[in-house]
Amino acid sequence: MFFASDNWAGAHPKIAAGLAANAAGFSTAYGDGDLDRAVYERFSEIFEREVAVFFVATGTAANSLSLAAYNKTGGISLCHRESHIVEDECGAPEFFTGGSRLLPVGGALGRIDPQELEQALRRLEPEFVHAGRAMAVSLTQSTEIGTVYSLDEIDRISALARRHKLPLHMDGARFANALVSLDVAPAEMTWKRGVDIVSFGGTKNGCWCAEAVVLFDLDRARELAFLRKRSAQLLSKSRFIAAQFDAYFKGGLWLETARHANAMAARLSAVIDASAQARLAWQPQANEVFAIMKKADAEKAQAAGAAFYDWHLPSGFDGRIAGDEALYRFVTSFATTPEAVDRFGDLIAR
Amino acid sequence: MFFASDNWAGAHPKIAAGLAANAAGFSTAYGDGDLDRAVYERFSEIFEREVAVFFVATGTAANSLSLAAYNKTGGISLCHRESHIVEDECGAPEFFTGGSRLLPVGGALGRIDPQELEQALRRLEPEFVHAGRAMAVSLTQSTEIGTVYSLDEIDRISALARRHKLPLHMDGARFANALVSLDVAPAEMTWKRGVDIVSFGGTKNGCWCAEAVVLFDLDRARELAFLRKRSAQLLSKSRFIAAQFDAYFKGGLWLETARHANAMAARLSAVIDASAQARLAWQPQANEVFAIMKKADAEKAQAAGAAFYDWHLPSGFDGRIAGDEALYRFVTSFATTPEAVDRFGDLIAR
Amino acid sequence: MFFASDNWAGAHPKIAAGLAANAAGFSTAYGDGDLDRAVYERFSEIFEREVAVFFVATGTAANSLSLAAYNKTGGISLCHRESHIVEDECGAPEFFTGGSRLLPVGGALGRIDPQELEQALRRLEPEFVHAGRAMAVSLTQSTEIGTVYSLDEIDRISALARRHKLPLHMDGARFANALVSLDVAPAEMTWKRGVDIVSFGGTKNGCWCAEAVVLFDLDRARELAFLRKRSAQLLSKSRFIAAQFDAYFKGGLWLETARHANAMAARLSAVIDASAQARLAWQPQANEVFAIMKKADAEKAQAAGAAFYDWHLPSGFDGRIAGDEALYRFVTSFATTPEAVDRFGDLIAR
Amino acid sequence: MFFASDNWAGAHPKIAAGLAANAAGFSTAYGDGDLDRAVYERFSEIFEREVAVFFVATGTAANSLSLAAYNKTGGISLCHRESHIVEDECGAPEFFTGGSRLLPVGGALGRIDPQELEQALRRLEPEFVHAGRAMAVSLTQSTEIGTVYSLDEIDRISALARRHKLPLHMDGARFANALVSLDVAPAEMTWKRGVDIVSFGGTKNGCWCAEAVVLFDLDRARELAFLRKRSAQLLSKSRFIAAQFDAYFKGGLWLETARHANAMAARLSAVIDASAQARLAWQPQANEVFAIMKKADAEKAQAAGAAFYDWHLPSGFDGRIAGDEALYRFVTSFATTPEAVDRFGDLIAR
Repeated sequence: MFFASDNWAGAHPKIAAGLAANAAGFSTAYGDGDLDRAVYERFSEIFEREVAVFFVATGTAANSLSLAAYNKTGGISLCHRESHIVEDECGAPEFFTGGSRLLPVGGALGRIDPQELEQALRRLEPEFVHAGRAMAVSLTQSTEIGTVYSLDEIDRISALARRHKLPLHMDGARFANALVSLDVAPAEMTWKRGVDIVSFGGTKNGCWCAEAVVLFDLDRARELAFLRKRSAQLLSKSRFIAAQFDAYFKGGLWLETARHANAMAARLSAVIDASAQARLAWQPQANEVFAIMKKADAEKAQAAGAAFYDWHLPSGFDGRIAGDEALYRFVTSFATTPEAVDRFGDLIAR
Repeated sequence: MFFASDNWAGAHPKIAAGLAANAAGFSTAYGDGDLDRAVYERFSEIFEREVAVFFVATGTAANSLSLAAYNKTGGISLCHRESHIVEDECGAPEFFTGGSRLLPVGGALGRIDPQELEQALRRLEPEFVHAGRAMAVSLTQSTEIGTVYSLDEIDRISALARRHKLPLHMDGARFANALVSLDVAPAEMTWKRGVDIVSFGGTKNGCWCAEAVVLFDLDRARELAFLRKRSAQLLSKSRFIAAQFDAYFKGGLWLETARHANAMAARLSAVIDASAQARLAWQPQANEVFAIMKKADAEKAQAAGAAFYDWHLPSGFDGRIAGDEALYRFVTSFATTPEAVDRFGDLIAR
Repeated sequence: MFFASDNWAGAHPKIAAGLAANAAGFSTAYGDGDLDRAVYERFSEIFEREVAVFFVATGTAANSLSLAAYNKTGGISLCHRESHIVEDECGAPEFFTGGSRLLPVGGALGRIDPQELEQALRRLEPEFVHAGRAMAVSLTQSTEIGTVYSLDEIDRISALARRHKLPLHMDGARFANALVSLDVAPAEMTWKRGVDIVSFGGTKNGCWCAEAVVLFDLDRARELAFLRKRSAQLLSKSRFIAAQFDAYFKGGLWLETARHANAMAARLSAVIDASAQARLAWQPQANEVFAIMKKADAEKAQAAGAAFYDWHLPSGFDGRIAGDEALYRFVTSFATTPEAVDRFGDLIAR
Repeated sequence: MFFASDNWAGAHPKIAAGLAANAAGFSTAYGDGDLDRAVYERFSEIFEREVAVFFVATGTAANSLSLAAYNKTGGISLCHRESHIVEDECGAPEFFTGGSRLLPVGGALGRIDPQELEQALRRLEPEFVHAGRAMAVSLTQSTEIGTVYSLDEIDRISALARRHKLPLHMDGARFANALVSLDVAPAEMTWKRGVDIVSFGGTKNGCWCAEAVVLFDLDRARELAFLRKRSAQLLSKSRFIAAQFDAYFKGGLWLETARHANAMAARLSAVIDASAQARLAWQPQANEVFAIMKKADAEKAQAAGAAFYDWHLPSGFDGRIAGDEALYRFVTSFATTPEAVDRFGDLIAR
């Protein structure tokens, strides 16, 4: 019953096998090996256009470098109030950009509210030396609270970014989970909607350590190469990331693991819905489930072996919550079993 | 005949197996899992005292964070003129420290000259707001050009650092190669000599991606935790690094792979010594061999399948070198075979 | 009718005379001259305890260095949502601190709401590597919208800062205006209330260019000296700032100019109160007056020679404002004449 | 006998008068006032082409912002080994550029050796992510040791910068002293020679505090405006700098004060030449004189009231110097009197 995070899992057997299969032999280092290049090609196929791909070690690096690629002096990036870049990266985006600012925008259910975004953008116009200047919009897909932007919703954010001449970044730490939730092609969810740069996460979805910045705007690739090296994110034996992505994409493994994780979240939702001890805080759309429980019940479940965290109430949360209750997060992954979910169901059914 | 770099090799079979063996199951993320903790313990045993260990993704990160752990406003770190932090890290040490400076010090054969170091340190004293202030001394063991500081030589640098109240950093990207070259215990080569912080490299010596900052001064550990996260070097599934180090240390694998690499370098030296086409630029002491060849001969060897790079003449190099000659670097690793060395020997014997 | 800003004025005749009187002769540079030292002493007298004084060129520098003096990796400084450091300094505080974050806290009438502050602080506890960590609380006295924290209100903020072990910074760009508004001694408004560091502004209150960081925590003085030099704020002929402060303090000139500015603001308030064309947005307490006017009326007044700016509605503003109305800011200074105020009164009386 | 530095002087009476004359009245702040604009025009006239002018508070700020205007990730600026930006600015250039590096180049008599520069530039080519990349060449005119680049010498440096596609920065903290030494027009010494950006100093030559970045490449002006504000160098009452420059240029005051300072240096040289106690270390060309004296004699002179500093021997210094001797620096300014020089002459004649 490990629902603490999708990064508590290890590596999918096929990922592990892919790594092992590539351990022997020699290869050019620093991202220029044959396997690296083959995987870059694979990214271009998957996104149905030429993309520039930069392997990095963490999702935080992918996000921070994505913003750094569009950095401005006095820059301000607009993102959701509870986005990962604001809440969970210890100021890495600010550090990588030499002190640019993240401007939190509200919005229900983890999604940026277009009206609030518009208002915030207008307040920064016309560009003015004292106020600093808008430099990017960043959205998270799937969001920090397990919801997913519909294509229309991405369009709305994207249109605002375009109108204000700003690049659009997508934090895709859980890219695959959103993709299979929407059941669309990667191109549809990204550049065809106006997304300029993606933090493409593989780690949470079955890899050991496989993150990439996927850049559609090839003009920025040269600069990004220096930004990555300068921030100590250029891996020497990058083949070890390429091998993971190679296995990840082969035969659609990545979609399969994401579908499994989402299905386990749905199963968990059902189990929670059926329980008198817990109720869904909102409808999950990917691989994260948020539920409200009495603190005493949650602690009992944890004592009985279920791993999950309590969570801050998101801005704009309009549900009722009693004084002895709290919000809890449950994350599923490729490694979550139906048995574990059902065992948890039994636990909270009692 | 892959002598381009030790990071052209993949992973040692035992490392690959160790990773695979740990792929299943769930574990606390971000360095707090059971295996992580067991490996931290192992480091303390190996260094014969309690140490704080921080896994990071690259050697550049380990070096940059080591300096950042001792950062000062207007800080100046003294290092060898051809050290990796100066020549090969795209300014990462400066970036991680918000703009501290690296002050290059000369010295023959890749080792800091104590007299030049002393002179440079004196010039920065007394501490003066205009000049900035010394903040660290960094040495590389083994050095960028395949030599090794003797214990006495480390003592001499260390005494200077102490006298000027500066911490001593050791860039140990090839720590194991130096260790087996000196045939001493890790403690002897580090804290017993006054080293305060080590960039402990596993990648070049048989791992996929396993680097760590090893800190003897435990008071700085809390700060370093924030520095690491802020620079996007806190890996979520850190178990994948722990598993590599676990296999690396088991049964002394790391010393075995380093001994092998050094032995292959010695064999390569012998082969070069015996050749009319090449001569050793200086005596190798670890796993890097530098030779002077006619450019035409080198190109012929490369065309015949030998991978190796030409190299800048190091400062203080006093050997003769003709106009049609150049300096070349050959690096061996756990994966170098005697056959490959001998084949290269045949090639340049012709 | 120059109400655009208090920095549209030049220098008070006594300040100008003070500068001229010190132009001849030689003096140690970089803040170590006799006049510099005498002025530091004067600061200590004024604050009734030993303080460390750092002259800088701008208020932005004073604020940014104040935060930098308490910098933490992953640091978060809490300040009012409409504070100058957030709205008007182009990210300088973030830049000076290598990317620490400003966390905006709401509060009516330009003052931090203690409850919101408490909530924000609690959310950052216990210290956690992902979230970053609180590093300072900053309040502005007088505030950006012309209000003043009472001593009790400062106490409340200060108690929170202490409880969470955070330093308290006071942005005193308009320190004197607040001081004479409260009619207390500098010590009463600062360190006796728990303030640790003050941006002490002289420029807006009659100097050409005279800003200082006043530090009560002398242990940090050495570090601040390096921070100032490193950020290019150590002035060589610092005597020119010392001479201004010397004249500023002599015979209480600074209190006199602040009292005059505040009195002119009160006169302006009365004139606005009496007008059918304008109404006070809230009661001014220092030298800034905010009024709501029909846009058409405001433009007419501007066309007739009155200089003033429209202003963003502050967070928590609960006044009514019609579609054809806007908020306007009027700032008075030592150089504002009763005649100018009355002329403006006539203008909007028509 | 104040020869410690040209920043030990105060302000020239005409500068002081100019400031006083502009103290009254109101003016747009932040560099947009009428006097600001008039002075920008004046700069364009003086340089015989349109330039962008940015007032800043210190020479360190002018230098650091000049490099920041051409910043690159992993950037390396080449400058003389003893230049001010390397030796005397506490790492400000690195800080302003987020960690770019200064690469010191040798050269006799304070001037960059073109051959060494060429060598250093070649070593950085082709651009390579590990090594970082060249971003600017910076020369100091007049140099830190009182010599002056001839127009031909500037041409040689400039040609190298062009060939390697690098901007050329001139640190003109003592611009006027060099100008009158060469007896050429500002345009001749700068953009006509290929200089792209100048740190134009007025402080050392008779102003209180008047420094400017003069940019010939107008495309970079917008970015520089944000860089300046972000680094807290945008002065609110910028009129106080404009007023100084206004007086500085009026009737060629600046050339007059520079000529006087240089003439006093020549007189000082003669006095030293005539003395048995001192000998010139090299021939001065601007307003700094370096002499070798017995330490005992120097101390005696200092005890008798002469203010001057001992100095590090510059790289490449080939003069003889005995064990009981040291190098000393004497700086003259607009405020140096012939009497003071002669008194010093008497002192060391004894």
